[in-house]
Amino acid sequence: MRAVSDYQDIISSHFKTLILQKEPTNLYEPIRYILSLGGKRLRPVLTLMAAEVFDGNCQEALAAATAVEVFHNFSLIHDDIMDAAPLRRGHETVHEKWNVNTGILSGDAMLILAYQYFESYEPSVFRELAKLFSKTALEVCEGQQYDVDFETRDDVTIPEYLKMIEYKTAVLVGAAMKMGAIVAQTSEENANSIYDFGLNLGIAFQLQDDYLDAFGNPETFGKQVGGDIIENKKTYLYLKAMEFATNDVKEQLLHLFSIQPNDNTDKIASVKEIFNQTGASEATRQTIEEYTFKAFTMLEKMNISQDKKDILKAFGDKLMSRNV
Amino acid sequence: MRAVSDYQDIISSHFKTLILQKEPTNLYEPIRYILSLGGKRLRPVLTLMAAEVFDGNCQEALAAATAVEVFHNFSLIHDDIMDAAPLRRGHETVHEKWNVNTGILSGDAMLILAYQYFESYEPSVFRELAKLFSKTALEVCEGQQYDVDFETRDDVTIPEYLKMIEYKTAVLVGAAMKMGAIVAQTSEENANSIYDFGLNLGIAFQLQDDYLDAFGNPETFGKQVGGDIIENKKTYLYLKAMEFATNDVKEQLLHLFSIQPNDNTDKIASVKEIFNQTGASEATRQTIEEYTFKAFTMLEKMNISQDKKDILKAFGDKLMSRNV
Repeated sequence: MRAVSDYQDIISSHFKTLILQKEPTNLYEPIRYILSLGGKRLRPVLTLMAAEVFDGNCQEALAAATAVEVFHNFSLIHDDIMDAAPLRRGHETVHEKWNVNTGILSGDAMLILAYQYFESYEPSVFRELAKLFSKTALEVCEGQQYDVDFETRDDVTIPEYLKMIEYKTAVLVGAAMKMGAIVAQTSEENANSIYDFGLNLGIAFQLQDDYLDAFGNPETFGKQVGGDIIENKKTYLYLKAMEFATNDVKEQLLHLFSIQPNDNTDKIASVKEIFNQTGASEATRQTIEEYTFKAFTMLEKMNISQDKKDILKAFGDKLMSRNV
Repeated sequence: MRAVSDYQDIISSHFKTLILQKEPTNLYEPIRYILSLGGKRLRPVLTLMAAEVFDGNCQEALAAATAVEVFHNFSLIHDDIMDAAPLRRGHETVHEKWNVNTGILSGDAMLILAYQYFESYEPSVFRELAKLFSKTALEVCEGQQYDVDFETRDDVTIPEYLKMIEYKTAVLVGAAMKMGAIVAQTSEENANSIYDFGLNLGIAFQLQDDYLDAFGNPETFGKQVGGDIIENKKTYLYLKAMEFATNDVKEQLLHLFSIQPNDNTDKIASVKEIFNQTGASEATRQTIEEYTFKAFTMLEKMNISQDKKDILKAFGDKLMSRNV
């Protein structure tokens, strides 16, 4: 088995060989652009890693890994339009660099391209991959819609929130890994176990993202710490604080999440104080632990050598300590 | 074999059984809405008809026919956003009734749903259908991009224009028919011949649309006659007129296609006069004939009974006389 950085190198070499210099240029150039912005390529890395965990061939899994990454970038283009986001990975978003129509159409083309990468597999593997892919892609759309809906709702429950992050983020992590398992043609039980491993790790990772957005180290987090608080985003921390708070504190938090001051320093400090004081921070850390633990228990169900289990466990630990 | 109206009834009954009352409502309600607006359902009718032409089962072809129609409606939602169109089939467009973000996301979900309808087929049929579908869907995106690009270009050639309408419209007609052939598991030659039949008929139909937009009967055409002229759209008639015109007339036409008067009556009359006088109208009628003829010659290559050929021929004649 290889190190994560080796998989990243394989992916990035492979992406350079993709033929995206096609006509019409205005359709394919934005696709080439977004894929060239890089990122950690975690999802395709997981596909390759899963393939090797089940004694499959890494090269053979490359097409499925490509589909996963192209789909992920499709969803970034369309989400960035919906969020009116100016920047992605420190560069202009596609709809900013070109326009909204280009973003819509190039995104559509990427969703179709993703399916085409599965065509290198034989019929039964192709069908299994495409089926999992469609189910997952639809869930990602549903998750995005829930996220949009939640912005204007004030009665979002914790189970609803967990379902939203599961669909919007975690199912693609699970599916990326299961695709590696499908290419390796391992048992259905192994394939389902690694899906659940990825799914639960994905939920843990997203909850940790919520947590670090408030309490992360500005030097290493990569995004603006306090960003969610500035945007009045109802994260897991917020929902837990609303659940635990006394009526007084609840009103205070509602007020803080209704204002948009020029200088956010005080607002961020007050909200974080409430997150800590109500026990929301502690509860969030605990839930992250629970999902991480649940992911790791899936390893026990897998019919693979202890070495392979250790590799997946080490990857999970690295991911959750954000050293990947 | 059944009448076109029978196929339309089968499709419309089937569409009522599709389960689209799912959560989140804001994602699935726009899908239900656009599919309920009806239309002639010509593409799915062609899938069912093609299946029966090759002795396949109409019921079995329904899933593929559904995929084709759902894809077509996905492209309408996204195209309407790009064109900022307020109306579709006499009703509000999805982005008008909801908003642009809803249009983007519901469209994305429809593209994925289209692939899911193929899952009822066994692996080798599934793979063949999905492969043809991906190729076609990507071409439709490319055609749409060419169409957008042409708006701001003044050097579009006739072959480029023909390629644009082939990709944007005709390939889906060809693919709809070929899918019926694939479900019927007929020979590759039959499947390719009916694809070419649909493709050429689709090009003829689109050219006729250009022609009727200027010279159609306002009572029966269904759209505003002269609409393309009002919008300064570079249709086949316009490109042919520019090709045939003397320098004087060319300048006159260029001028007419640069103005946007409040009352378009004179403009429309002058442009139509130029289309006739330059021979562009005659040339367009001739090209429509050529593509229709080319479609009909494909029937000769098919290994099916004369009855079946007559049915396809009659359908083509009806379509081109706009009596379908």
